[in-house]
Amino acid sequence: MDSLALQRYLHEHIPLSRAMQVTVRAASIEEVELAAPLAPNINHRETVFGGSASAVCILAAWSLVQVRLQSDGRPARLVIQRNLMEYLLPVQGDFTARARIADEEAWRHFRRVLDRRGKSRIAVAATLECNGAVAGQLAGTFVAANLE
Amino acid sequence: MDSLALQRYLHEHIPLSRAMQVTVRAASIEEVELAAPLAPNINHRETVFGGSASAVCILAAWSLVQVRLQSDGRPARLVIQRNLMEYLLPVQGDFTARARIADEEAWRHFRRVLDRRGKSRIAVAATLECNGAVAGQLAGTFVAANLE
Repeated sequence: MDSLALQRYLHEHIPLSRAMQVTVRAASIEEVELAAPLAPNINHRETVFGGSASAVCILAAWSLVQVRLQSDGRPARLVIQRNLMEYLLPVQGDFTARARIADEEAWRHFRRVLDRRGKSRIAVAATLECNGAVAGQLAGTFVAANLE
Repeated sequence: MDSLALQRYLHEHIPLSRAMQVTVRAASIEEVELAAPLAPNINHRETVFGGSASAVCILAAWSLVQVRLQSDGRPARLVIQRNLMEYLLPVQGDFTARARIADEEAWRHFRRVLDRRGKSRIAVAATLECNGAVAGQLAGTFVAANLE
C-alpha cells in the first residue's frame, strides 16, 4: 500500500481524517508520516486542538501496523486498545505525525503470536512535529486479530 | 455558561467539534456531558474511530474545567498536558462523553495553587458510553495559567 492508496483508504473509511485534512507523506514498513494543516484542527488558543493532535498520531500508528501486516501478506483486524499522549509544546502551524516501530524484535514477537494464537498486541510510538520541533508523543497499544 | 453557550463556543473555536457533530447535553459544575453521532466519527470497522472517541472525551474534560473556572469567576488559559485513553468496547452507535471531578479536595487544591502561583494542574476523568455501557475511559491532566 503506497502513500496515495493509504490516503484514499483513510479518507474513505475514516471520514474524520478528511475533516482534519490529513495527507500521507510517507507509507512504508520503516515509517508512516501523516501531515495536517492548522486551520481545520485549530482550537480556542489558535494552536492545534489536543484531540486533533492525538487523533492524527493514532492514525499514523494504526497505519504503520496496517502497512506492515499488508507487506507481510497477513491481513488482520486491527484496533486500538489504549494510548498515552503527551503534549509537549503548543502546535502553532501545520504539523506531522510520524510512526515507527522502535523494536524489530517486538514486531517479530507480535507476528509469531498472531500466527500462533490468531490475536496479538503491539506497542507503537508516534511523534508529533511542527516546524522541526517535537511537540508531542503518543504511545499506543494495538490489538490485531484474525479477520472473522 | 449553559449547554447552548458551551456548544456555540466549541463549534466556533474548535471546528473539529463541529466536524464530529458534538452537542452539549449538560454543562454544570457537577458534570459536562457531550454527545456525538456515529456517522461522522466512523472507522473502517463501522465503529467509532479511537481518535474521535478520545477527542470527544478531551473536549468534555476540558469543558468541565472551563465551566468550573467561569463559575468561580476565575478565567484562565487552559491546555491539556497529557492523557491516557483506554478503549474498552467497540462503539457501534451514537456515544457520549461525561466528565466529572472525582475529588473536590483536588479541585480546591488546584484553585489555591492557581491563585497563589498563577499556574496549576488538575486531573480530570471522562467516561465514554454507548447504549448505557461504558466503552472507554480518559484520564487527562490539564494546566491552567493566568491569562496573559
